Amino acid sequence: MVDGAGNVLGERQSADGMSACAADNRFAAVLEEHLEALSAPLDLPVVIAGMAGARAGWLEAPYVETPASLSGLHHHSVSPKASRPVYILPGLCQINTGPFDVMRGEETQLAGVVAGGMASGVICMPGTHCKWVDLENGVVQRFRTVMTGELFDLIAKQSILRLSIQQAPAETDQTVFADAVSEALGENFTLTTSLFSIRAAGLLSSPGANEAASRLSGLLIGAEIAGMREWIGSGKTVHIVGSKALSALYAKAITLADGSASILDGSALVRDGLFAAAKAILQN
Amino acid sequence: MVDGAGNVLGERQSADGMSACAADNRFAAVLEEHLEALSAPLDLPVVIAGMAGARAGWLEAPYVETPASLSGLHHHSVSPKASRPVYILPGLCQINTGPFDVMRGEETQLAGVVAGGMASGVICMPGTHCKWVDLENGVVQRFRTVMTGELFDLIAKQSILRLSIQQAPAETDQTVFADAVSEALGENFTLTTSLFSIRAAGLLSSPGANEAASRLSGLLIGAEIAGMREWIGSGKTVHIVGSKALSALYAKAITLADGSASILDGSALVRDGLFAAAKAILQN
Repeated sequence: MVDGAGNVLGERQSADGMSACAADNRFAAVLEEHLEALSAPLDLPVVIAGMAGARAGWLEAPYVETPASLSGLHHHSVSPKASRPVYILPGLCQINTGPFDVMRGEETQLAGVVAGGMASGVICMPGTHCKWVDLENGVVQRFRTVMTGELFDLIAKQSILRLSIQQAPAETDQTVFADAVSEALGENFTLTTSLFSIRAAGLLSSPGANEAASRLSGLLIGAEIAGMREWIGSGKTVHIVGSKALSALYAKAITLADGSASILDGSALVRDGLFAAAKAILQN
Repeated sequence: MVDGAGNVLGERQSADGMSACAADNRFAAVLEEHLEALSAPLDLPVVIAGMAGARAGWLEAPYVETPASLSGLHHHSVSPKASRPVYILPGLCQINTGPFDVMRGEETQLAGVVAGGMASGVICMPGTHCKWVDLENGVVQRFRTVMTGELFDLIAKQSILRLSIQQAPAETDQTVFADAVSEALGENFTLTTSLFSIRAAGLLSSPGANEAASRLSGLLIGAEIAGMREWIGSGKTVHIVGSKALSALYAKAITLADGSASILDGSALVRDGLFAAAKAILQN
């Protein structure tokens, strides 16, 4: 909850996401619960980003196709029936300008980047599904989703490699990580023909405690950076928006690929994007 | 159970593998159960391949390092305490001649290939973990494990792509498969930056019933073939040992990479390899 100048008056977080709300269509009830806890006025307008606008969400806010202006997202918001004004922002899709792709939620963080004054650049948003975004004058020209985080979790926890990977979360071994990134950036590298060596190393040698996990991380992030090289080599700085630890690993990998990386403070970006949309909506 | 000339007198299959036997060390008991059901003589010698020789198995049969002669595997067999002569064959490992790698079980199928008269060639053994083997004069020079089958299962059933993939097993769409293989064989292809398009296609277009699974299969097998190109382009025919459906897909992908493929009838290879080892052991 923010005031008219964007100052935070209160905030709430919970795990009541789309899947928790969709079954009994509890979207409106969950929203009101949280607003009540914040003592929000009954007529306070609400702007929502993310999966609430998915087909299986509260009310579908159809994807806006690239090239897409981030300052114009609110023109495509939808308003479900509710006891107060509610605006759900759309996601983005890519159909004609590249391989099929979609995002929901990240576009609002990107709108926050633009509201903060950065209108052009390559943005890399690591996480479960890393989003790479080519931004020009506040317009998303193209983007690409890479499932690196999800693959890391699946492979580390459920594949045969889990037997060689220490499951307790631990510090990345920076040397092992960098070596694996360099291997992945090398000519003739392919990911799937390289993964099993992590398991075999656990049987045939005595790797250090976090070596297997660090190597898997380096091979996966390195493979991603190798695949995005065209975007990195364009002379633009890659601006990273993500958790602190992951952002540092991506920055290191991008540097190893002779790219240039900067880490943005992402914590306020969703709020900045939502506030920018709210201002635009309420001024109309 | 075979006679002295290798004729099959009876056979049993069960799911009592290493993990089922290791907990209470039931290896000897399970073996005797199955032999009794076959009315095997009490002094009949038994030759075993596979995970019974793993560190966590019945008795460790340490890996034989490449280059490894397949007709000499029995020299490295180990014999656990049992009421009859039992010989557990070793697996193979690769330490100095390439990336760390291991196999247990496939080496006995390969010994069957050699016993059948084929001493040299590239062998591709698709499955959960596909093994590629470079065989020269009955000696495994080098090999490589690729986790394609396991990755397919994990991604199709547990990643976000599962939402776009029809879970009932179905026929591969050959055109979609071939297109995806060709995409994976193309310059600048990287697997992880391409996978999410399968999910997005499910949201943005109306793919055919098996299109997503066939495309995933083509991208993964294509990425494997691209990674093994050096082995395929050597002018040797790739001999495929695997299930019928999977062998046909690999043969098609190898052909699309301008390689040459033949499909071996793999059904008898383990038995042939075990019988060759048994003869060698009992003649000593």
